[in-house]
Amino acid sequence: MIKIVIGIDIGGTNTVFGAVNLEGDILIESSMPTNLYDNINDYLNHLSKAIDSVLNSISFNYKLIGIGIGAPNGNIYKGTIEYAPNLKWRGSVDFVKLFKKYYNVPMALTNDANAAALGEMMYGGAKNMKNFIEVTLGTGLGSGFVVNKKIIYGHNGFAGELGHISVDIDGRLCACGRKGCLETYASASGIKRTVLYELRKSNKNSLLRNIKAENLRSKDIYIAATKNDKIALNAFDFTGKILGLKLADAVAITEPEAIFLFGGLALSGDYILKPTLKYFEKFLLPIYKGQVNILLSELNNRNAAVLGAAALILTH
Amino acid sequence: MIKIVIGIDIGGTNTVFGAVNLEGDILIESSMPTNLYDNINDYLNHLSKAIDSVLNSISFNYKLIGIGIGAPNGNIYKGTIEYAPNLKWRGSVDFVKLFKKYYNVPMALTNDANAAALGEMMYGGAKNMKNFIEVTLGTGLGSGFVVNKKIIYGHNGFAGELGHISVDIDGRLCACGRKGCLETYASASGIKRTVLYELRKSNKNSLLRNIKAENLRSKDIYIAATKNDKIALNAFDFTGKILGLKLADAVAITEPEAIFLFGGLALSGDYILKPTLKYFEKFLLPIYKGQVNILLSELNNRNAAVLGAAALILTH
Repeated sequence: MIKIVIGIDIGGTNTVFGAVNLEGDILIESSMPTNLYDNINDYLNHLSKAIDSVLNSISFNYKLIGIGIGAPNGNIYKGTIEYAPNLKWRGSVDFVKLFKKYYNVPMALTNDANAAALGEMMYGGAKNMKNFIEVTLGTGLGSGFVVNKKIIYGHNGFAGELGHISVDIDGRLCACGRKGCLETYASASGIKRTVLYELRKSNKNSLLRNIKAENLRSKDIYIAATKNDKIALNAFDFTGKILGLKLADAVAITEPEAIFLFGGLALSGDYILKPTLKYFEKFLLPIYKGQVNILLSELNNRNAAVLGAAALILTH
Repeated sequence: MIKIVIGIDIGGTNTVFGAVNLEGDILIESSMPTNLYDNINDYLNHLSKAIDSVLNSISFNYKLIGIGIGAPNGNIYKGTIEYAPNLKWRGSVDFVKLFKKYYNVPMALTNDANAAALGEMMYGGAKNMKNFIEVTLGTGLGSGFVVNKKIIYGHNGFAGELGHISVDIDGRLCACGRKGCLETYASASGIKRTVLYELRKSNKNSLLRNIKAENLRSKDIYIAATKNDKIALNAFDFTGKILGLKLADAVAITEPEAIFLFGGLALSGDYILKPTLKYFEKFLLPIYKGQVNILLSELNNRNAAVLGAAALILTH
């Protein structure tokens, strides 16, 4: 009898899920659209059918020991998704309670960055670490803080919003309604804003001038950087400076052994890692210098969101 | 048989210690100079004699169950005092190991801000809280972060240096060698620097002009503020703005239920609390607004350092 966990990653467009064994192998994986279902009950009905069909295709004896869910604005204490701007379900969605009607197994739900942190700890670069920070550099900047092998969830389940610490109170407008949050600079969309600003401000030649603003992706900036494009390289340096400074601040709070960079922008590898490390070391308090690694996530090439969601059950 | 703990608070000038019962009453207290002893062994020899004499004066049957020590740059993992600039003993001092020769009881040592946080949790305003931050506003700014009733000590025991997060990388020179750390603005010495700067910059009347720079204390600024002195009131507002913003950042990391202000500057009461709260609420991420209290420590009128050091044994 092989024990399995279902890991579910709910994104704005698609929901990806998989059956994971205790060693962290994704045995089988599938997906379905998220944004076709305006009603949460319709969504859960279809999701359960899709999961059942995956489970039915498993050819060995298994026991389902739990379901872990990673979702934007997921709240571990309440099992809810709270006012997620990129999902169609408004307000606070009682996800775990509703989904328990379909599967009477242990279920836990948290936000995607916390799930990634758990995945890193169970299956990635943080396997032997007790204290680390996972930073997800996607459309926004998410974070999961691990202290003594446990996620810091906070008083109401809303800890780990590193993306919303302040870089400049008069800075770039943020989706949260305030100005100058870290994620408006250090994220896939943040570096895109930096590039667009630089393109407008200067007359420098750049490969990036050939791409329409609305089509520009952080991957394009990475590709331009590999071709020694100055605008792209400067944008990575600027992003690394702000990220390095704020990660140095985060170290002063939890003093981790390492910080892992995960997600779209982290796929730029050394182009984002090197400037971040350079400024990080420069800005660190002397007692921390040379003591804290910044590493690329070891989950970047795997389906970390599904693994992380599964890890939620295995560590809970 | 009454169980007691010895709590020791090592300061640059004096060492204060007391016998504390499990209810947090300081049964007997005493002190001795710290700075008379260049040699740590001489110091420990005298300290043990002073403690013995206090213990000998106890008239009831007791059992000594441990000794807790709060010291600048104290390291919980190693029981050491690490390169404390205000103490005469250079380098890394193996305090616990050396002091165990005198008392063969459980012993633990941490920095003063962590000790204050433990004192707040055992005997102060955080008695029923699982997640809070203790901020000590003295010569510097110290902090203890409590998550799930446990101090965040970090990978090497150096977590909780909120005083050294960056306000302005080109800002005021800090004792740590860098520029613009939070404690250069938000501390007893920080508000003094703000006042001295304002006095130089403007010609405004102020009661504080009558005090020589080297004699100015944060208490004088408080007294001037109670008399409606504009320079003093502006300095509290400026300090509260920077502190409020950075506490809002700290909330985005650990999402505490409350933040306690402790120490010299916190004795200014509403003069520091009100502007800090005003800007804190303004700068908070919307999901946190109205959810996190900033409170004055309930230990401000007690010997918190001794209580906190004792709490180290009782919670360890």
